[in-house]
Amino acid sequence: MATQPEDPKKALGWAARDSSGLLSPFNFFRRETGEKDVALKILYCGICHSDVHMMKNEWGVSTYPLVPGHEIVGIVTKVGSKVEKFKVGDKVGVGYMIDSCRSCQNCTENLESYCPQFIPTCGAENYRDGTTYGGYSDSIVVDEHFVIHIPDGLPLEAAAPLLCAGITVYSPLRYFGLDKPGLRIGVVGLGGLGHMAVKFAKAFGANVTVISTSPNKEKEAIEHLGADSFFISHDKDKMKAARGTLDGIIDTVSADHSVSPLIGLLKSHGKLVMVGVPIKPVEIHVSHLLLGRKMVAGSNIGGMKETQEMIDFAAKHDVKPSIEVIPMDYVNIAVERLLKADVKYRFVIDIGNTLKPSSQL
Amino acid sequence: MATQPEDPKKALGWAARDSSGLLSPFNFFRRETGEKDVALKILYCGICHSDVHMMKNEWGVSTYPLVPGHEIVGIVTKVGSKVEKFKVGDKVGVGYMIDSCRSCQNCTENLESYCPQFIPTCGAENYRDGTTYGGYSDSIVVDEHFVIHIPDGLPLEAAAPLLCAGITVYSPLRYFGLDKPGLRIGVVGLGGLGHMAVKFAKAFGANVTVISTSPNKEKEAIEHLGADSFFISHDKDKMKAARGTLDGIIDTVSADHSVSPLIGLLKSHGKLVMVGVPIKPVEIHVSHLLLGRKMVAGSNIGGMKETQEMIDFAAKHDVKPSIEVIPMDYVNIAVERLLKADVKYRFVIDIGNTLKPSSQL
Repeated sequence: MATQPEDPKKALGWAARDSSGLLSPFNFFRRETGEKDVALKILYCGICHSDVHMMKNEWGVSTYPLVPGHEIVGIVTKVGSKVEKFKVGDKVGVGYMIDSCRSCQNCTENLESYCPQFIPTCGAENYRDGTTYGGYSDSIVVDEHFVIHIPDGLPLEAAAPLLCAGITVYSPLRYFGLDKPGLRIGVVGLGGLGHMAVKFAKAFGANVTVISTSPNKEKEAIEHLGADSFFISHDKDKMKAARGTLDGIIDTVSADHSVSPLIGLLKSHGKLVMVGVPIKPVEIHVSHLLLGRKMVAGSNIGGMKETQEMIDFAAKHDVKPSIEVIPMDYVNIAVERLLKADVKYRFVIDIGNTLKPSSQL
Repeated sequence: MATQPEDPKKALGWAARDSSGLLSPFNFFRRETGEKDVALKILYCGICHSDVHMMKNEWGVSTYPLVPGHEIVGIVTKVGSKVEKFKVGDKVGVGYMIDSCRSCQNCTENLESYCPQFIPTCGAENYRDGTTYGGYSDSIVVDEHFVIHIPDGLPLEAAAPLLCAGITVYSPLRYFGLDKPGLRIGVVGLGGLGHMAVKFAKAFGANVTVISTSPNKEKEAIEHLGADSFFISHDKDKMKAARGTLDGIIDTVSADHSVSPLIGLLKSHGKLVMVGVPIKPVEIHVSHLLLGRKMVAGSNIGGMKETQEMIDFAAKHDVKPSIEVIPMDYVNIAVERLLKADVKYRFVIDIGNTLKPSSQL
């Protein structure tokens, strides 16, 4: 096992030390590889907007040092004695969660992301060996149940964002029946999640409309992402003309915004699914729901079985995120650019080639 | 046809003349019975809360004179030459709508209540012979598509409220999959709609919890309506203890109220369906939806096929509204009592025996 470090428990990551969110090198330890555990050498990790929320303690739950990262792709370096699905050398991924209760109704139905006790990959306290540290690091040890196979044919760096952004939009498209060919699907917001929603919806055979606040995204949406139409959410004429035309909408916007106009875009029996989390509550006129038997729902990543299904589907249908691969020491600049929406559409850190022990920095 | 009046077009009803909502006798005409029409002598008509909204112009769309009533039961007195489903003497019902476009997607899928052009039974302007007048009257002429058979075994006076209150709660229980035995269903508000929701949910085999603002409804809910449990919505301890326990909630309350605590009562993947229409928009914390993939929806009566199915189900399973039968000239007092929630649970006007020409009043 030449790829394994001398002491498998020693780990190196980049951590935020306070709510400035500034990341810097951080030495820590991973737990021993237990009998059901898979240890992996991390090669790539995506930068998700929720990493930034956590780094800056914007949800009020962060403790420091905090190693972000939950779109993790790597190579298996060690497996426990009772691991059944993986062997050393396998290409694998770890997403937003690394454990759950395994016994509640959601867990038994492969819906671990709705287990009230699910353990996020980074920032969970008092889990086994302490705080969970994420994928802006060189290694991780995870129970095999929360590890997925990366299928051949999917570039590893492209696989990373599928593990959070991908499953977060794939799961509601499937669960809410918005995965049927010919449906008219709206995607609100064209960031990391939104661009994946366009790609998956197109792969399902939908007619896809992008609704954005940025006119300059039109060309990109149509020409590069394959959307069928595009309009600006404050273009009242376009919004009015599009009333009652969509079967479903995936709303990826986390900024506070009005959802009433979006509900208006739905056909009767249409579904508005929110995967971003605006801080302020949204206001909904019940009559707008009632007169068309419409619904507003939320959805949160997806279970492990569905995550595997999603990534297999992505490989089969060549659904890949659009990414910008960056070196580890560019991460603070990348975060600044992310906050200005200056990325198409996901930063992925090349951990394997650029994360160096701090003495070498 | 001895039951037919001398001139079938002459009709007598009770109408509101202004936004006081006060009802008084009103002579008018019904259209000739067209080739697809069914004419009926009205025997009973339920008093729905939305009648009161219309009488008092609380939705701002009323024109006067306004004859309310859309829970109509009667006997067929005449059928048009091309009527296929009905014959003179049949026991029939007419609900909230009397026409729709018959060609849109909703209409072709038997979801006429979501047709953008559906015609309400009372208060619609410029429909065929003018304004539509409802069932607080002695006769009505309706296209057979919007007439349903009242099955034997269901008392006619009890059938009336099923045509609006009944279908309004039956349809969402069915559509949203809340009709499976063993599900835990909450019913918010115990009025005309709420008490029917309890009865239908019990008939589907659910465990039913009533959530009310009135402690004095507990005995009634448990002992007479068959609910399994009951609690007061402002009892914080009970609300907390019940968090995450319900598969679905039918919220029948039209008064402004907070839905966040109701969303908290849902299990993950639970569904809150609103069938009342609060005037103010409801505020929803997206995180509450997202973390449990919960949904908030609205639902509006039901299509004609489902209305027939509902009433057949009601007859088969002995699901009957609890009613207080009143004479026509009691209607203004009944409205006052309805506004004080002083009715268990629906007033039904005995039109057939008590609606007299005004000269006899």
